[in-house]
Amino acid sequence: MSNPFTLLSSSSQCAARRGELRTLHGTVQTPVFMPVGTQATVKGVTPEQVRELGAEIILGNTYHLYLRPGHELIKKFGGLHRFMNWSGPILTDSGGFQIFSLQQLAKITEEGAAFKSHIDGSSLFLSPESAVAVQEDLGADIMMCLDTCIPYPADYRQAEEATELTSRWAARCRASQRVDGRLLFGIIQGGMYHDLRLRSLAALQEIGFDGYAIGGLSVGEPEELMYEICEATAAAMPAARARYLMGVGTPRNLVEAVYRGIDMFDCVMPTRNARNGMLFTSRGRLVIKNARYQDDPRPPDEECGCYTCRHYSRAYLRHLYQAREIMASVLMTIHNLSYYTGLMAAMRRAIEEDRFLEFYRDFNNATNAA
Amino acid sequence: MSNPFTLLSSSSQCAARRGELRTLHGTVQTPVFMPVGTQATVKGVTPEQVRELGAEIILGNTYHLYLRPGHELIKKFGGLHRFMNWSGPILTDSGGFQIFSLQQLAKITEEGAAFKSHIDGSSLFLSPESAVAVQEDLGADIMMCLDTCIPYPADYRQAEEATELTSRWAARCRASQRVDGRLLFGIIQGGMYHDLRLRSLAALQEIGFDGYAIGGLSVGEPEELMYEICEATAAAMPAARARYLMGVGTPRNLVEAVYRGIDMFDCVMPTRNARNGMLFTSRGRLVIKNARYQDDPRPPDEECGCYTCRHYSRAYLRHLYQAREIMASVLMTIHNLSYYTGLMAAMRRAIEEDRFLEFYRDFNNATNAA
Repeated sequence: MSNPFTLLSSSSQCAARRGELRTLHGTVQTPVFMPVGTQATVKGVTPEQVRELGAEIILGNTYHLYLRPGHELIKKFGGLHRFMNWSGPILTDSGGFQIFSLQQLAKITEEGAAFKSHIDGSSLFLSPESAVAVQEDLGADIMMCLDTCIPYPADYRQAEEATELTSRWAARCRASQRVDGRLLFGIIQGGMYHDLRLRSLAALQEIGFDGYAIGGLSVGEPEELMYEICEATAAAMPAARARYLMGVGTPRNLVEAVYRGIDMFDCVMPTRNARNGMLFTSRGRLVIKNARYQDDPRPPDEECGCYTCRHYSRAYLRHLYQAREIMASVLMTIHNLSYYTGLMAAMRRAIEEDRFLEFYRDFNNATNAA
Repeated sequence: MSNPFTLLSSSSQCAARRGELRTLHGTVQTPVFMPVGTQATVKGVTPEQVRELGAEIILGNTYHLYLRPGHELIKKFGGLHRFMNWSGPILTDSGGFQIFSLQQLAKITEEGAAFKSHIDGSSLFLSPESAVAVQEDLGADIMMCLDTCIPYPADYRQAEEATELTSRWAARCRASQRVDGRLLFGIIQGGMYHDLRLRSLAALQEIGFDGYAIGGLSVGEPEELMYEICEATAAAMPAARARYLMGVGTPRNLVEAVYRGIDMFDCVMPTRNARNGMLFTSRGRLVIKNARYQDDPRPPDEECGCYTCRHYSRAYLRHLYQAREIMASVLMTIHNLSYYTGLMAAMRRAIEEDRFLEFYRDFNNATNAA
């Protein structure tokens, strides 16, 4: 198979890198943030708004779509792209993390994961093979292997067993792939144990994937530990392949992880926090319901040029939020996602111009000062 | 004062008429439907989406904006247009209907209406003068007189007293108007009594307004009675002035009222029903949650060219609705408002081409057959 990732340039100051990832629905500039579209929609925004705010690729959730409306229906409608009217690349996760986080009663065996639907309680089963088949039915450009997530904390034995099962499942995922052109990424597990992370990576490289992801971070561990595992794992990952840190994170998390050589991210934080009235800005976070914004004529972020910041005041957004208007979620989602895509674009430029360390320092100064 | 309304043509077959209404923020083609933007937003859609779906003028609610965020704040922000990013005309109602419908404990005296906020229970008061002042602060292009609504059923004495109070209030509204260029409409009350409707109209004409509205219909009376009062009242209204039927109604209501000579409408139905999963189509109503739409690849309305119908299937909308996604409300609101604006545009063309009766029959056949 040909390598879909091209490394365009690397920082001379740190591990940050600038690349391109080619998919069936277009090429993505990395480092990239992928807005989460769990249920075949990025909550609150149209596909045209998603594109206008600078997102090139979005993420769909296999677990949710498998439950509702079902992968057969989406396949019948020509795949997720046509079903939801998004013509750009889509990455689908495998469902492993959702089974881990939503299901108290999931039962993991060698064969796969048995779990109950959070919608109607019905019994369901995902194997490595069916997880890939579902993602192929969804029409994903980038598919993820089914993995088993490791809680934090976990003892060494527990982490080792889950990691080895993830490796065996990864081989089955790769062997079951039927459709050409779709990319399949392996997921590195290993918990907070460096040696397990490296063993996991080695096993996946042995199988060979189109890209490699770090799973099982941001599960409750201290932030410094996350950075430590991320740094050590990324340093061992093949430079020629895209590196994806799953489910992370805050703006600062993204900057720290790009610094350590990560290329791809996804997180519900910008969209979920928007719906809860929390805005990310170049001066830090802004909680819109605070009384101080009641008559504040400024846009959410004076350095932002997004649709929301061009047209609306903090006072107006606060009014919409207090009045529980849908438009509060829409406008704040547009801003938060714009902030994330803008942050990634700024990081890409800084790497291209080989001044990432300056960017990194400025970012920390600006957000610490706020 | 100059007349802001121009009658362009009249049907030779019925009372339907085609006109233009000039306001400070642009000219509106009539008959027109005004989407309701109660709390300084048309629920679920951006101003750009409102314009794209063909709406020329929107309505704001004095009662809601007076309570939250307050007219002083909106005035400070340059008026409702700038606050909410809508550059077209805005009509504001006076608050009379909301005080009537939301308040069990409103107390109406000669002086005005005392009521309690539905948000925090605080005591508030609107007089005819303050209702106009609030609307001037909001920056409305078209203001409505404060009126007293009459419940259905109401005995003659009750209806007569309320109607006469509305007339005395109307004179006070007109006298208190301070800002030039804004239009002020009088509201005809009279309940279901023809003679009171005519007395109300005569009293308002004596004062002289920029346009005249029929209030107090669609309050629980049989539809045929509404048409009867509408027809008799409209026939007596001055032909040279815009005629506005407040708070009405279904697509059929609009067609019946245009047939009887009405020029302007507003109603929460297209937006509210959209959020509840009910779509208006050229073949009648469609309840999106019905199982029959689960795998229906057709757009909501095959004869509609709106954004929603161009890009999304009934199956997708049903999925979004079942999953309680914001985008369900957004996309169905866009469709329903498009249906309403499209219906008005079709009626305007039919009047221009003097074939309104054919339009009226085709409309009834198509929607009866569904």
